[in-house]
Amino acid sequence: MPFIDSVDKAHDAARRINDAFKAEGKRPIIFSTLIQAELSKIIEASNGMVMDLIHTFVIPLEQEFGVKSTHTVGRSHNIADSDDYKNRIEAINFSLAHDDGQSHKNLAMADVILVGVSRSGKTPTTLYLAMQYGIKAANYPLIPEDFERGKLPSGLLSFKDKIFGLSIAPDRLSEVRNERRPGSKYASLENCRYEINEAEAMMRREGIQWMSSTTKSIEEIATMILQEIKSDKRAY
Amino acid sequence: MPFIDSVDKAHDAARRINDAFKAEGKRPIIFSTLIQAELSKIIEASNGMVMDLIHTFVIPLEQEFGVKSTHTVGRSHNIADSDDYKNRIEAINFSLAHDDGQSHKNLAMADVILVGVSRSGKTPTTLYLAMQYGIKAANYPLIPEDFERGKLPSGLLSFKDKIFGLSIAPDRLSEVRNERRPGSKYASLENCRYEINEAEAMMRREGIQWMSSTTKSIEEIATMILQEIKSDKRAY
Repeated sequence: MPFIDSVDKAHDAARRINDAFKAEGKRPIIFSTLIQAELSKIIEASNGMVMDLIHTFVIPLEQEFGVKSTHTVGRSHNIADSDDYKNRIEAINFSLAHDDGQSHKNLAMADVILVGVSRSGKTPTTLYLAMQYGIKAANYPLIPEDFERGKLPSGLLSFKDKIFGLSIAPDRLSEVRNERRPGSKYASLENCRYEINEAEAMMRREGIQWMSSTTKSIEEIATMILQEIKSDKRAY
Repeated sequence: MPFIDSVDKAHDAARRINDAFKAEGKRPIIFSTLIQAELSKIIEASNGMVMDLIHTFVIPLEQEFGVKSTHTVGRSHNIADSDDYKNRIEAINFSLAHDDGQSHKNLAMADVILVGVSRSGKTPTTLYLAMQYGIKAANYPLIPEDFERGKLPSGLLSFKDKIFGLSIAPDRLSEVRNERRPGSKYASLENCRYEINEAEAMMRREGIQWMSSTTKSIEEIATMILQEIKSDKRAY
């Protein structure tokens, strides 16, 4: 229940908690991030079991820092003006413009370039990296023409140090592709096996770091890529 | 510091915490989400001030539910197989395919269609809605041709109930557009004022709900839109 910022809204929330308790006969578990003591008290007086995610930590933090919290609501909402926020929006625009090998322009500005066969998870991962961390992430598909030539797409050759590969289990890839183009050669297990074999062989040959996205969420893939980028930067 | 999943890595983390303490003369504040007691103990024995985001809440939850936590690491990583996760990936693909009025196809499947002038924040918001909530969000620019005709783009007329508008203060819009095309008519304050006036007049005339994105982050805009969608659904 977002935007609980008045006594009325807090009472309304407490009423809904109490209704749920009545209907289910069990205390609803409430995770609260309210910071105004007046509103917290109203929720705490309900029939819910309240886990206070803010005050639980704010009190020891106040002691540690020797400073009282101002308990001001909405401070995070100023982020729209910050440089960090602008970087994130800029990174989203960059990642969109460099999705699926659309543009070779400004690749020098990319923080990371993901490569992999079609449907290996590149696009959602680049968008997540941009949106969450402000990372300028381009992505490039590895396609059958690249495998025939036996070389990375030529636009990428000068950026090898920031290329990161994604692979995926052939049967999983076939499943995903079949949802998009059922029964196609593109989606067939045989073709998926061929593409994955070729892509992994190419990444090994070119010395590109890569990981399998088969059982990983975009959050997890992004965090792993971030670790690689950071540890590279640290090494410089 | 992600992926601390062994005694060695925990000791390494504790060492870095102790180094920071030595360098700064102040206890580093550690927010820990470790769930293995063995690893938590190593971090707690460091010179950091540890705020344990998991055990602080897990213990009362165990009591409330009458069930012991299995303290298993990595459970959230199974999400890549869940329907929720597939919906999110599908929503991202949908939102990309329907970015900036690219396609009229399957608009009936959209959960929400954002409209607004160029650079009012539609694209990042639709991607966030898709990525975070699995909402299929299309977006459509309102352009000078629409204002001359005095009508919404014709492809949208049958979907008025799921259209949501974004507006923005003219001076902020001019600032954002000037970053992209410095000194252009497109970015001029006069033109931005004209487009915003026309867009807001059109949304009012067509009875479209809208909000200003000027001081709001994409997280906040998305949460507000979500509230509108949900309360609509609840009303049916």
